[in-house]
Parts: sequence; structure tokens; C-alpha cells
Amino acid sequence: MRDFYPEDMAVRNAIFDAWKKSSHLFGFSEYDSCVVETLALLKRKKGEEIVDQIYDFTDKSGRELVLRPEMTPTLARMIAARHSSFSFPLKWFTIAQCFRYERMSLGRKREHYQWNLDIVGEDSVTAEAEIVAAAVHALSTLGLNKDDFYVHFSSRALLADLLLKLGIAREHHAPVFLAFDKRGKICNDDIDKILREAGLDQKNIRQAFSLLNISSLEQAAEFLGNNQSSYRDVLQFLEILDAYGIRDRLKFDISVVRGLAYYTGIVFEAFDANRKFRAIFGGGRYDNLLKEIGGKTATGVGLGFGDVVITEILGHMQKAGSHDTKAETAVGYMHDDQRATAISIATALRNGGNTTDLALCPEKAKNFFSRVGKSGFREAIYVGPDDVASKTVRIKNLATRSEREVVIKEMTTSSVPVIYPQ
Amino acid sequence: MRDFYPEDMAVRNAIFDAWKKSSHLFGFSEYDSCVVETLALLKRKKGEEIVDQIYDFTDKSGRELVLRPEMTPTLARMIAARHSSFSFPLKWFTIAQCFRYERMSLGRKREHYQWNLDIVGEDSVTAEAEIVAAAVHALSTLGLNKDDFYVHFSSRALLADLLLKLGIAREHHAPVFLAFDKRGKICNDDIDKILREAGLDQKNIRQAFSLLNISSLEQAAEFLGNNQSSYRDVLQFLEILDAYGIRDRLKFDISVVRGLAYYTGIVFEAFDANRKFRAIFGGGRYDNLLKEIGGKTATGVGLGFGDVVITEILGHMQKAGSHDTKAETAVGYMHDDQRATAISIATALRNGGNTTDLALCPEKAKNFFSRVGKSGFREAIYVGPDDVASKTVRIKNLATRSEREVVIKEMTTSSVPVIYPQ
Repeated sequence: MRDFYPEDMAVRNAIFDAWKKSSHLFGFSEYDSCVVETLALLKRKKGEEIVDQIYDFTDKSGRELVLRPEMTPTLARMIAARHSSFSFPLKWFTIAQCFRYERMSLGRKREHYQWNLDIVGEDSVTAEAEIVAAAVHALSTLGLNKDDFYVHFSSRALLADLLLKLGIAREHHAPVFLAFDKRGKICNDDIDKILREAGLDQKNIRQAFSLLNISSLEQAAEFLGNNQSSYRDVLQFLEILDAYGIRDRLKFDISVVRGLAYYTGIVFEAFDANRKFRAIFGGGRYDNLLKEIGGKTATGVGLGFGDVVITEILGHMQKAGSHDTKAETAVGYMHDDQRATAISIATALRNGGNTTDLALCPEKAKNFFSRVGKSGFREAIYVGPDDVASKTVRIKNLATRSEREVVIKEMTTSSVPVIYPQ
Repeated sequence: MRDFYPEDMAVRNAIFDAWKKSSHLFGFSEYDSCVVETLALLKRKKGEEIVDQIYDFTDKSGRELVLRPEMTPTLARMIAARHSSFSFPLKWFTIAQCFRYERMSLGRKREHYQWNLDIVGEDSVTAEAEIVAAAVHALSTLGLNKDDFYVHFSSRALLADLLLKLGIAREHHAPVFLAFDKRGKICNDDIDKILREAGLDQKNIRQAFSLLNISSLEQAAEFLGNNQSSYRDVLQFLEILDAYGIRDRLKFDISVVRGLAYYTGIVFEAFDANRKFRAIFGGGRYDNLLKEIGGKTATGVGLGFGDVVITEILGHMQKAGSHDTKAETAVGYMHDDQRATAISIATALRNGGNTTDLALCPEKAKNFFSRVGKSGFREAIYVGPDDVASKTVRIKNLATRSEREVVIKEMTTSSVPVIYPQ
């Protein structure tokens, strides 16, 4: 589990700020819940194979609890609890810490923070488009350019139609989706085993995997006919993304299915252009989840965007620096006799909105300027006995070495003593 | 454990924002760590009686873990790990979720968020003053006036000198501090029992409690003589707070000792003026903690400011509203044919920094304006076929009902189409 020292926190805050900014600009409302959930809630989802990866424990009173692995069941629980009081569609977001119990590897840790965007109660693919557009907006804010990433997408509904066309019955689709998702993560023999145990014969398995050769939407339409609603939904999704101006960042990729069992429609995953890293974000439509969790029927589209992979990518692109939260102005003083003056100057600066570091003990001028010079402050004010006598101080710009004199009383009595010209 | 629906989140964000703002203005750097800690770390602190209140559990691999009850041991661990790379004093802050295992009551829940401010490595009471000033600044930001609260303070060092003067040996001081802190929380017989079991006789107990009759600093000085360093520290603390302009918000209160065993010097707790609620924030000097946790010796001063009591107080004072994060502008459209235009308008608004809700499906004008009228948007834009034909839209101010016409192309091609005159 991670410690965040101030320099790590600066990177994390840059990412969180981009997530929050895009959420607000796109009109999502923030929610949150406790990191501890009941195991019972997690078990209500059908078809999951992740119970051994869940960070569950039993508390002193014998309650079976978990450190949540994802936020969507909690979202479903919260919506179910107040379903009748909401006007749908809801557009909600959160930044949630999530846990998993497994060995750590590149891009995967025991815990991570995940930005979740969800639209609940909208059937049309405008919901998918709005969510993908918000996530792409956040990537731009973080400094990723047009060609730095692609959003790979497919549709489980389209894939289901393709499987049906091949004669593979609906009951076998879930294991096929799981198998597709596991490719490259576990060995092919194990994937074969999953499918055989689920009841698929060797011919079905070969046919299902042949679908992965479909490399374009046109090819899928050729095979399926272009009148299927699953196909028309995908076309409409792309048309809407064109209006958002981000159509060119999308790539049809039939191998994208997502690991979670609850997706039912369009699914998507963003990758860096060179595919050096794991998925940056992923999500899709889950039309039955809320009902399974115990709520009323409501369609949903969700996105999860973790902090670990994007931190690695920003580090790799060297775009993660310079978000220091350090104070801009340093105030120091020579003796205890000047302390009260230094405090009133620092207080005035702070009240005026300037982030200000006040020395906690007297220093010689040389020591003060040596210390603040190393620490990246923008301006410095040093108060000595002469300054108190002359009732003025000098504000030194540490980059240009220029100084200007200010009457102390003007600083400390003005209501908004902003020292930086805006 | 709490769920935060969007309206709860708005209140929480207002509090977190005030905490962060004061932290930055006062030059504190942010850090964080995982909510799961090892039980071993918690056990390294001496003299604690809170193990049965700790939310501990054993994970699948047999590790003894806790959902942290407070952040200070984690801070000590993080500083110890990199002690030699830091220039002290450090000024750090975090907003950390903390857990306790006990029954819930007013102002106390199973989990809460706590703003922690710490200054590590500064011996003088300038550190205490800086931290109290930052916390008072945050209360002002939240709308609490001068007379709405007081910061009660005492000094464990002063209290220790008073106990020594009464002939009560140093080894008995820790149980006396604990007993003082428990007054009003557990019954007097139980307090007596704690002290007798710690080895104090009836006379000692009576004498120790007689100290609670000291109602002013002058009285303490009379009893102790005014040359003790513990007394001079308190005087200097007040003198410095005078320079900050907040001396009048401080009240000497010998009964303030704080529950945690690790405090060694000045301790403080803020209360609402009517004492209707539990402490708003509390803290003090802990000069030995870092060494106990396993680091090098470093003095420290810390503050914890929880979200639960302040939320209750703001609710009581009705100061918690109006922090809605809802989008300011709503964009709707009549038919699918106008969707692309509506999306490009919404995209332009968002790129210009306007929080914008885009309708996810077509609506009749009447339905759109009825919906957005109820939802508290500031301005609304509705796109119909005539607007697309005339290449203009009307921006309607929902409060004044006034409208102004804008050429669509001007909105969507300008790089910063801020629609609100600043």
C-alpha cells in the first residue's frame, strides 16, 4: 500500500484535479461512500469470478466486510436506497480508493484510486458518448495529445449477435467474454479449459475465437447484416463522438470485452498509443446491474479511470512535474523583537490569498536567503530592526533578484494586499 | 459508516476546501497514506488505552492490520523512513479518513475525516501558534465569527509542574492526565479507580483534582512562581497569538489535557461558544512520539480537526448550504437532427470553462425549460430546427428571464467562449 510524500501528492493532486475539473464541466455531481462495504453486497452481483481477489475480512463483531474492490456495487446500493426520490438520468462521479488482494505488478497495486463516472437511467448511446468525451477531456487536461492514446471499443451486444449467428447459445456467451478478456493474461490451455468446463465444444471454441479476426466494423456488418440494433447503436455512438470532435480517437477493437460480468452493451478501454502500459480507463454499459443489486431496473453506463497507470504514463512522458503546492512567499526575521511584525505581514499576505511560509524562529539574513533560495519560493521578505524602524520592508523577487519597498502599514491594513500584480 | 449523496458531498467539499485553503495559505505541504496500517505500528506508542477501540482485523495472509484510528503514528513512520533527507522543520497536512470501533453517538461516528496539521522539528511555541492560527483561519473561512467559538488551552508541562509542586511524582502524571480527560465521559468512581490502581492515594487524588479549581494563568503562576519555563512558554504562546490577531479567541482552561498519551506541552481544544457540541478541533505538542515510533528524536506539534462536529455546527448555524456543484448551463435540443449542434455548443462552453449539462435525449421545449427551471441552472440554451437554420441560438438567463442571441459559429470557434461576463 502506498505512502504519498508531498512530491507524490503533487502528482496525485494534478490527476485528481483534472478528473474533478472534467466532471464539473460535464455536469456530473460528486458522491462518495465508505471504503468498507459488506461482503453480502459484493456477492449479489452475478457471474463474478473475483471473490478470491476481494480484500475481505471479518470484524470483531463477526461481520463479513470488504475493502471495496470497485465502486459500482456501492453506487447501485446508494441509488436503490433512494430510487423513488431521484429524477433520472443521474450523472454522478466519485474518486474512490479501491482494493484488491493479489500480488502487485506494473500498473496494478493492492490499492488504487479510481475516478468513476456513471450515467444511470439513459438508454441511448448519448450516455456512452458523454462519458467517453469527459474521460478524453481529462486526458487532454493532463497534457496527453491527440496521438498519445486511443480509445478501443467494442460492443458485447454486437459480439453476442455474432456468437448467435455462429450458433453459440446465449448461455455460453458469458464464458466466451471471460475467455476473450483473459487472453494474454493466462495461458491458452487455461482459457480452453474455462470454455470446455462451461460446456462449449471444440468447434464452438474455434468459431468463437475466429471472431477475433474481425478487424473492422464493416467486416462485422458484412457477417451479421447491417440491420441489427447492436450494430446501429455502434454507428450512432461514432456519429455522436464526431459531434464531440473526438471520433478520430476511437478504434473499433473486437477483442475489448472488459473483465466484469455485468456489461451488456458498448464497452471501451483507452490505451497509450504504443501499448506500453495497461488500460488507462475502461467502462461500458451495464443494463441489468442495478436490478441484480436489489434496486429497480435502471440502465447505466460507467467508467473507471485509475490513478496508477496514468501516473506511470505521465512519469514516462515527463509530464508529471511542477505541481508543487509549496508556498509562494517566504517571510523571515532577525530577532524575536521583529517576530510580531513578521507575523502581521504574513497574516496580511495570507488574508490576501498569498500562500506564505512564516519562519518559525529568527535567522540571520544570510541563512534566511540561502534557505529560501533553495526552496523554490517566488518572493521573500526579511524583517530586521532597521525595517521596523523605517516602517518599510523590501519584497525580493527571488528569480529576478529585483526588490521593491513597501510601507508595512499599507500591507497590514489593506484588506486585500495581493503582492503579485495579476 | 456514512454514504455521501451529492447534497452531503457539497457540505463535505466546502469543509475540505476550507481546510486545504488554510493549509496552502499557511505553507503546509500535503501528504497521505493508505487507510490500512499495521497493528504493530499502533502498538509502538506507549501508554495508550485505546486498543479495544481500534478497528483491527486479520487479513487472508494472517497479517494483523488496522483501519487507522488516527494519522499521527503514520506521519511518524513516514518521517522516520526518510528522516535524513528532510530539512526540518517540516510543515505537513493531510485530510485522512480514520476509524474507531465503538458505538456511535452525537459527534462521534465509526469513521470520520480528519484534517491533520503537523509541524515537526521546531521547539519553540511559534509552532503551536502557527497551527492554532491556521485552524482559526479555516473556521473563519467556513463562516464562523469571532464569538462563535473559543480555543481552550492548557499545558501538560505546566500541569506537570503543578503536580510536582503538590508532591505527586512524575510516574503518576500520565494517569492523572487520563483521569482529567475522562471527567464527564465516565463516572467519578471509575476515575477514582483508575487513579488508585495507578498507585495514587486518596490525598494525592484530592490534591490533583483541586488543581481543576485554578481558573486563570495568574492563579497558576501564584501557586507555582512565575519563573518556570512551562509558564513562560504559555505566556510567549499568547504573545505570539496576539501578533496573529487572535489572542482574544483563546481561553486558558486547566481541564484541557487531551486523551492521547503522547502530548508533552501546550494542548488545546476548540469549542462552540455555547458548548453544545464536542470539540471542533484539538491538538498539542508531542515531543517524544517520533522517537517512540522508531525514528530519531524530533519535536512536534499537531492538530486534528474532524468533519463530523463541524458539519453538525454548520448545520445548526445553517451555514452549510449553497455549495452545490451542479452545472451552471443546460443545453437541450428538439430532435436528433439538432443533436450535433447542441453537442458542439456544449463542447465549446466546456472548453471555455463553463460547467455544462447536455441533454442526453431530445425534448420538447416545454419539457426542457420545465426541467431546467426546477434544477437550479443559471442559463439555458435550447436548440430547435429554426435555430440551426438561422445559425443562432438564444441564451436564456433563468433568473431574469432575459435572452440574448448568439451566432452559433462564434460560440463554437472562439477558443474561450465564456458566456458569463466576468
